[in-house]
Amino acid sequence: MSIEMQSHQAEAAPAEEPLSQWLINMPEPPTMWQEFVGYIRTNVLSKKRNKMKKKPSNQVYSYLKSVFPILIWGRQYKLNMFKKDLMAGLTLASLCIPQSIGYANLAGLDPEYGLYTSVVPPLIYSMMGSSRELAIGPVAVVSLLLSSMVRDLQDPVTDPIAYRKIVFTATLGFLVDFLSHAALVGFMAGAAIVIGLQQLKGLFGLSRFTNKTDVVSVLSSVFHSLHHPWQPLNFVIGSSFLIFILLARFLGKRNKKLFWIPAMAPLISVILATLIVYLTNAETRGVKIVKNIKPGFNRPSVNQLEFNGSHLGQVAKIGIICAIIALTEAIAVGRSFATIKGYRLDGNKEMMAMGFSNIAGSLTSCYVATGSFSRTAVNFSAGCETVVSNIVMAITVMVSLEVLTRFLYFTPTAILASIILSALPGLIDISGALHIWKLDKLDFLVLVAAFLGVLFASVEIGLLLAVGISFTRIILSSIRPTVEALGRLSKTDIFGDINQYPMATKTQGLLTLRISSPLLCFANANFIRDRILNSIQKVEEEEDDEQVKRAKVLQVVILDMSCVMGLDTSGVVALEELHQELASNDTQLVIASPRWRVLHKLKLAKLGEKVKKENIFMTVGEAADFYVRARTTSHDMC
Amino acid sequence: MSIEMQSHQAEAAPAEEPLSQWLINMPEPPTMWQEFVGYIRTNVLSKKRNKMKKKPSNQVYSYLKSVFPILIWGRQYKLNMFKKDLMAGLTLASLCIPQSIGYANLAGLDPEYGLYTSVVPPLIYSMMGSSRELAIGPVAVVSLLLSSMVRDLQDPVTDPIAYRKIVFTATLGFLVDFLSHAALVGFMAGAAIVIGLQQLKGLFGLSRFTNKTDVVSVLSSVFHSLHHPWQPLNFVIGSSFLIFILLARFLGKRNKKLFWIPAMAPLISVILATLIVYLTNAETRGVKIVKNIKPGFNRPSVNQLEFNGSHLGQVAKIGIICAIIALTEAIAVGRSFATIKGYRLDGNKEMMAMGFSNIAGSLTSCYVATGSFSRTAVNFSAGCETVVSNIVMAITVMVSLEVLTRFLYFTPTAILASIILSALPGLIDISGALHIWKLDKLDFLVLVAAFLGVLFASVEIGLLLAVGISFTRIILSSIRPTVEALGRLSKTDIFGDINQYPMATKTQGLLTLRISSPLLCFANANFIRDRILNSIQKVEEEEDDEQVKRAKVLQVVILDMSCVMGLDTSGVVALEELHQELASNDTQLVIASPRWRVLHKLKLAKLGEKVKKENIFMTVGEAADFYVRARTTSHDMC
Repeated sequence: MSIEMQSHQAEAAPAEEPLSQWLINMPEPPTMWQEFVGYIRTNVLSKKRNKMKKKPSNQVYSYLKSVFPILIWGRQYKLNMFKKDLMAGLTLASLCIPQSIGYANLAGLDPEYGLYTSVVPPLIYSMMGSSRELAIGPVAVVSLLLSSMVRDLQDPVTDPIAYRKIVFTATLGFLVDFLSHAALVGFMAGAAIVIGLQQLKGLFGLSRFTNKTDVVSVLSSVFHSLHHPWQPLNFVIGSSFLIFILLARFLGKRNKKLFWIPAMAPLISVILATLIVYLTNAETRGVKIVKNIKPGFNRPSVNQLEFNGSHLGQVAKIGIICAIIALTEAIAVGRSFATIKGYRLDGNKEMMAMGFSNIAGSLTSCYVATGSFSRTAVNFSAGCETVVSNIVMAITVMVSLEVLTRFLYFTPTAILASIILSALPGLIDISGALHIWKLDKLDFLVLVAAFLGVLFASVEIGLLLAVGISFTRIILSSIRPTVEALGRLSKTDIFGDINQYPMATKTQGLLTLRISSPLLCFANANFIRDRILNSIQKVEEEEDDEQVKRAKVLQVVILDMSCVMGLDTSGVVALEELHQELASNDTQLVIASPRWRVLHKLKLAKLGEKVKKENIFMTVGEAADFYVRARTTSHDMC
Repeated sequence: MSIEMQSHQAEAAPAEEPLSQWLINMPEPPTMWQEFVGYIRTNVLSKKRNKMKKKPSNQVYSYLKSVFPILIWGRQYKLNMFKKDLMAGLTLASLCIPQSIGYANLAGLDPEYGLYTSVVPPLIYSMMGSSRELAIGPVAVVSLLLSSMVRDLQDPVTDPIAYRKIVFTATLGFLVDFLSHAALVGFMAGAAIVIGLQQLKGLFGLSRFTNKTDVVSVLSSVFHSLHHPWQPLNFVIGSSFLIFILLARFLGKRNKKLFWIPAMAPLISVILATLIVYLTNAETRGVKIVKNIKPGFNRPSVNQLEFNGSHLGQVAKIGIICAIIALTEAIAVGRSFATIKGYRLDGNKEMMAMGFSNIAGSLTSCYVATGSFSRTAVNFSAGCETVVSNIVMAITVMVSLEVLTRFLYFTPTAILASIILSALPGLIDISGALHIWKLDKLDFLVLVAAFLGVLFASVEIGLLLAVGISFTRIILSSIRPTVEALGRLSKTDIFGDINQYPMATKTQGLLTLRISSPLLCFANANFIRDRILNSIQKVEEEEDDEQVKRAKVLQVVILDMSCVMGLDTSGVVALEELHQELASNDTQLVIASPRWRVLHKLKLAKLGEKVKKENIFMTVGEAADFYVRARTTSHDMC
């Protein structure tokens, strides 16, 4: 008997060792201030510190290299790469010119602003960006956003653009995370439909049209306008070229080598339609044409920027939303192509590059530029090697600004509408939506909310709904975390959720609970305490064996705190109350695998003394073994 | 050699078993809909289902017992218990009468409403409440809240009270969690100072006084009033009795048996001061007196309730805030005394009891009643056994409403001010604030924000600041979770944070990371993915051994997902991207101890096939062992 006891003690000793050895001699966690300083050091100063090791003469150059990746890949740039980039750039330009004019139209700007936006931002981006395929320029969704949100302001060109650039770099690193994938899918689909409906204006050649973006206003506007006399010639030109572009795309999809056919189709349509109008004088028969495009390069627009005035608040809001959408789109597009080619996009560099591209753009009569999905795909199919294809495209557009503008005078607006319409199906990702439905019903709700919000209310309401629902989920999971009962998987030291592992066994007299919340704080401390007490009560009520009931159902409650990262004072109070309630009922509260900060807080709160140091264990298994062994020993002694 | 290999395989087989056995044959987690139904069933219908097992004749009675605890303890009630309760109740009444009149004054109501509030709510509470010591009636902080928030409304008596009752039961179970302990400490201290300053009006006998509550307005109001002629007699009476009450309390603290002296002091002060005024006709010499108190019991006030009107929105807001503060205070007070006596307060029962007490109160000319800390302490010291002391108190107050009101006509208002002032120090918990400072600096910030907000702006702004800061912390911890590198504690299977356990060892070629967030979702998926990739990069850069570097620094990255409860589509996308990036770099991504829902999502997303089933393990230790063993085997083979 005494030998058996000794062996128990001998067994118990090494089990206790890790606790005394590791938990007690633990270093103190850093204070909030130390953490803050550390965060600043690693995130802001780290690059400098790394540089200090190198020779000072290299410092400037290596800093420049980190800001301008062109200095790195430019050295290895070879002629055969340039051949490929030249081809890709020219293909890109042929798609870019008509699209830019169309999107400028959609944004409510004169057509030359779209072309300007395809010159300066791509040039800047090619020096600073880390993507090799991304084609920079105006895109449909951001153009729609601008026109729909700026319509209440008096001066749509100067103010918002200017202010946007400032807000851009300052706010974005933080905000860009908050549009979930699902919200974007829904938002893009809704925006595509709204954009498509707006093209009815150009396609039918209507003069009076609503400037609201929701479906109801647009459709009623179309319906009213069709009662007035309208020009069927516009519709004939627009729809026939739309069919041509769609056929070209179909051909391109059937045979991957013919990728240049769909890429050239819009430019061919523009040239053909313009020639037809010019030769037949169709503009006198009611065909609407683009008319005045100012020739020449980008003009400086610094003097047009205004940073004061009554619209500043609204403009800031517009700027933030446009910036989020633009950057999210660019990074999403860039990342998906980078993954195909097997390299990694640097999110921070992308943000910097986009920010500077748009700041430079705002000073040279451009509006918002970002990465276009359709053009990036063309660029990729055309076999681009580096961002040099963007430079080629920018130079081509620049030349055509000088040469083609006179020619573009006669371009019918219906052709621009059909070019935009042909690009829209790519924005509606039905298989993506189905995938989301299968994976996560709540995410699908976010998607639907964003979609319907954009469609029937406005762009802002759609985004607000999506972000609101997404955050409600985070808050709910914080204030109502799960507390799971754990059981031991037979013959192992592993304890698992008894719902997940139905074969897990409970030990008589022991209840093991895991708190699945990173913070035990004011918002959930009472809830967690009550859940724990209820679980204990349930175990005691469910015990049918009268003998066990008379003795005592639960001797020990093991609290697995491995997922709890921190406590606040409410959390400490809740643990104290829990300890007291259990103690008054002769049940022991045991804490297993507490984290760094939690253990430190428990020490500070002197809760450690109340719970006693012997009642804190490294793992649930260790705690369970210790108590089972202790009970066996005491039974043996009886 | 071949024998060695066989033995490795033999060893590997049992390690794999748990995975194939448990992870793959796991039951499907419940869908969102099943969970919702389950939640409703356990939380709303559970009581009914339990009853079904018993005889139907007992059903009604046991339901009544669960609603009215008096039916349980009433049966065991004995005469000697009643003796104690009678003494405690009479002591309570002697403190309650002057306090009620004072608090009604503070709330901007006629004095009899305070007395009414000490009759009906305590009677209802005594039948439904689960606390034995809680003394119900008007309290200082809620009275201040009412007066400060109702001041903009035209009709301060009927509307808010009525509406409050409705909002009360409906909203509270959810909202009461959100005032953290720290926010309450700060709020109470700020409120105490504001209340004290407001008493200067009564103490100095001022006629014109601001109805704002912030320090600056009140002090400037006092300052301006003192320039006009004022009546020093008010100050003499008020301050001398304040000193008397404080002396009595000092005596009571020195000798615990003399607890009745501080409890009786306010009533004695009222009686003495009233007699002095009555006998000396001091009211003609400028001493302000209470004047009209309507005699008689509570009158029904149903006909005064209004549920429509222009103030409904504002009134609802006032109602919610008052209800939160009132309920939080009652439960906090009740719980602390229950812990001393070693029983447990049922939060839901308390909420029901408080709700019904106040609904009944609103129909009988009462304003907000809740548990008072000072009176509960007196009740406890007086040796109360059950809530019968509340019944005794209510009856005593009822009798005095009939008998004493004529006498109270001559009570000077200065004495009411000094009674309120004497109760305030108990609201300022300096040691509590120090404890919070020691434990958690951010909680202390919340405390200070609530304190300064109440003091210098308004009650609402103080609360808003506190709740805002508290929630910012939750949101921040959700969007910027920690990703920790883990190391093995020598000779165990335990993996711990290498910061917490500096002696933990890393294994060459393996990087083990733990995600400490319950949700891998849109708000943090990109951040977590980038953190993981950065950690990998850091490991590769830090490797100095050229030979290892040339071979390959990292072969396997083990992701400990034991704390991740759920994924949304953004989380799945992030994991997919991570897997692809690692695969393109010939590094294996291994997932260890995934939870139920996470594993299910991975299966749905077909990520399981990409990561391969062999790369999902039950524990980090198992995964690490498997890969170390696999590498040894392949080395042996070479």
